[in-house]
Amino acid sequence: MRTRPLKVALLGCGVVGSEVARIMTTHADDLAARIGAPVELAGVAVRRPSKVREGIDPALVTTDATALVKRGDIDVVIEVIGGIEPARTLITTAFEHGASVVSANKALLAEDGATLYAAAERHGRDLYFEAAVAGAIPLIRPLRESLAGDKVNRVLGIVNGTTNFILDKMDTSGAGYTEALDEATALGYAEADPTADVEGFDAAAKAAILASIAFHTRVRLDDVHREGLTEVTAADIASAKRMGCTVKLLAICERAADGRSVTARVHPAMIPLSHPLASVREAYNAVFVESEAAGQLMFYGPGAGGAPTASAVLGDLVAVCRNKLAGATGPGESAYTQLPVSPMGEVVTRYHISLDVADKPGVLAQVATVFAEHGVSIDTVRQQGKDGEASLVVVTHRAPDAALSGTVEALRKLDTVRGVASIMRVEGE
Amino acid sequence: MRTRPLKVALLGCGVVGSEVARIMTTHADDLAARIGAPVELAGVAVRRPSKVREGIDPALVTTDATALVKRGDIDVVIEVIGGIEPARTLITTAFEHGASVVSANKALLAEDGATLYAAAERHGRDLYFEAAVAGAIPLIRPLRESLAGDKVNRVLGIVNGTTNFILDKMDTSGAGYTEALDEATALGYAEADPTADVEGFDAAAKAAILASIAFHTRVRLDDVHREGLTEVTAADIASAKRMGCTVKLLAICERAADGRSVTARVHPAMIPLSHPLASVREAYNAVFVESEAAGQLMFYGPGAGGAPTASAVLGDLVAVCRNKLAGATGPGESAYTQLPVSPMGEVVTRYHISLDVADKPGVLAQVATVFAEHGVSIDTVRQQGKDGEASLVVVTHRAPDAALSGTVEALRKLDTVRGVASIMRVEGE
Repeated sequence: MRTRPLKVALLGCGVVGSEVARIMTTHADDLAARIGAPVELAGVAVRRPSKVREGIDPALVTTDATALVKRGDIDVVIEVIGGIEPARTLITTAFEHGASVVSANKALLAEDGATLYAAAERHGRDLYFEAAVAGAIPLIRPLRESLAGDKVNRVLGIVNGTTNFILDKMDTSGAGYTEALDEATALGYAEADPTADVEGFDAAAKAAILASIAFHTRVRLDDVHREGLTEVTAADIASAKRMGCTVKLLAICERAADGRSVTARVHPAMIPLSHPLASVREAYNAVFVESEAAGQLMFYGPGAGGAPTASAVLGDLVAVCRNKLAGATGPGESAYTQLPVSPMGEVVTRYHISLDVADKPGVLAQVATVFAEHGVSIDTVRQQGKDGEASLVVVTHRAPDAALSGTVEALRKLDTVRGVASIMRVEGE
Repeated sequence: MRTRPLKVALLGCGVVGSEVARIMTTHADDLAARIGAPVELAGVAVRRPSKVREGIDPALVTTDATALVKRGDIDVVIEVIGGIEPARTLITTAFEHGASVVSANKALLAEDGATLYAAAERHGRDLYFEAAVAGAIPLIRPLRESLAGDKVNRVLGIVNGTTNFILDKMDTSGAGYTEALDEATALGYAEADPTADVEGFDAAAKAAILASIAFHTRVRLDDVHREGLTEVTAADIASAKRMGCTVKLLAICERAADGRSVTARVHPAMIPLSHPLASVREAYNAVFVESEAAGQLMFYGPGAGGAPTASAVLGDLVAVCRNKLAGATGPGESAYTQLPVSPMGEVVTRYHISLDVADKPGVLAQVATVFAEHGVSIDTVRQQGKDGEASLVVVTHRAPDAALSGTVEALRKLDTVRGVASIMRVEGE
């Protein structure tokens, strides 16, 4: 074994960073044996240097992250500060000055992964980011490497723990969205400002990363259709239950049937209780991958948290260090297919639509005509009436999203339709 | 991209090999783009050269596998013939003559992986074998690489599709073992000679491989305690159901609580219906991995079959080819912990014991005394009596297997115990 240590710079020392530093210290011998050389924490860039950080030598702590990545003796930079800047500049600067990078930064990878990949390749460095998607669950490596000889057609998953916790609470307790969010916040599953989670931005960033890797093309955050779960009601959940379904916030990346384009989207959807994703509880994550030869694979585990995310970061650290010792680099960007990303309107899906209608003869015929005019075929209709009011619950067959949403717009204009109580897509069948 | 192709020799052209060859042809452009160079099938060693193999140039077919691996121009040998010899000699010869190897050979890796690893290392070649365990499910790579910075404490899984199919049939239809085996054979899930599957040899080989990688030590097939499912009865399954459990053939690899030894075993066990492994149906495989930082991860998918296994082989082929182009090798053997493998007697587990006893006063006290004498604590007892006969169903707390089996031996000697109707371990709680 080489005795001269590989030097690691840590950018950020919050929940994940402090756990990375802790494991690097407590498991130093194991890491050295697995890498073939010891690894040494050579510097830790933080915003608040005065904060006491147990187990970290204060002499290593700096507020000057730029100087740290420019030192020139750093072999690997671990970036766990998140956000676009200064993370992007720090990472590209690290590449310029001789370091490879392990990052957990989903937002940056989804926004501008191409810049990072290009800088890594230009300087012959590694860019690894298992921790950016679904925490500890190995997903990036299986997609980039294990399935490199296969053709992935679909990735469907629960990739945000906060929203899964909220929906699980709503499902099990009948709570409304606000009540469930309050509980998630109280238990530390939701941040003080939950926007990134509940509006689907976090899941959309992960969908962009997964789609890019799965389909060997470039999919950016802006390419991902995004709907959060703030409008999911207790009535929607109850409605899903009546259908033998539950509601999950899903990230769905698909190759079009003709293979010439891809789509990526995040939205709440009903899935059958028999689907394995339906039983993913609390803040857990799970991702289905469907490929031509392997068939259906599922990966399940904790999608966030300091220790699980640190596990993913350290797995990447070992890989990057091994590559460094071998004088090689791991897989870089693979975007050779250059498939266009189609808009949401072209996605083929199914709708569950709940309408409040006048309770009089001919209403169903009128509604059915609107569906037919938009080329949308109806799978089932359930009609309930009382006291002059009635509700119609329609589940469609598969149709392009544009035709489905066009149908809903037309339904809203009917005199006999008093309101559209809920619209939700149905997936996983 | 490099235009000179990497040359691949295929040893074996059965269900898996023919699928590998097919995908190498139909997806040649994708493979080339992902590897950075084209790959060319340069030779196919078979036993029956006269058999027509669609899509394979007959000029490539040979019966002389040894000459093929000695050619010297072969970059990667794919070994899918299975068994110990001639596979072992062919693989080590391939290493000597310049090739890296992708293998699906669980028996050989479990029997003598050390020889293969040593030969690969001596000659600076790669040895990859994702397909050897759980077919298409990425498991070797996540354990060898994704979790390389973590400490795995337990691997628990269903790694044999045939036996899971049989147990699933017994569970859902109430069929006996023989009837369920017949159905598995008729549907092609069981081979004409099902010994390797039903006696647990196949699962034990996989357990040896998983334990070796998970614990960074050497675990061989002989180290794995093995019990098949031929003695599982419809009554056992019914008994499990009454406990809210189902019966699965599990491969379990554990690090001892003190961290100083490991165990590996394959046997039928009751697991609670609420455990995710309980819902793994038909011939699917699923493996739980518990590690210190990542927590509980689960990997699920098709554990066998031509196309899924080929997917795993081709993922490895891409990795090995990339390494070759980079002049590097991937991870080799990691056995630095040199942990001893403890015998089954030291494994801590729980027993579900069903006894036929005389229906008279004092029997329970007598039975309970035997448990106490062996230091085994009882969790629950269910007593049922009719017509002078009675049954006692005892579920123990956790205890060393030697104490549990010692208890059973002593129970057999009691006059009041007419027979031990069933013994099964309880796991997954």
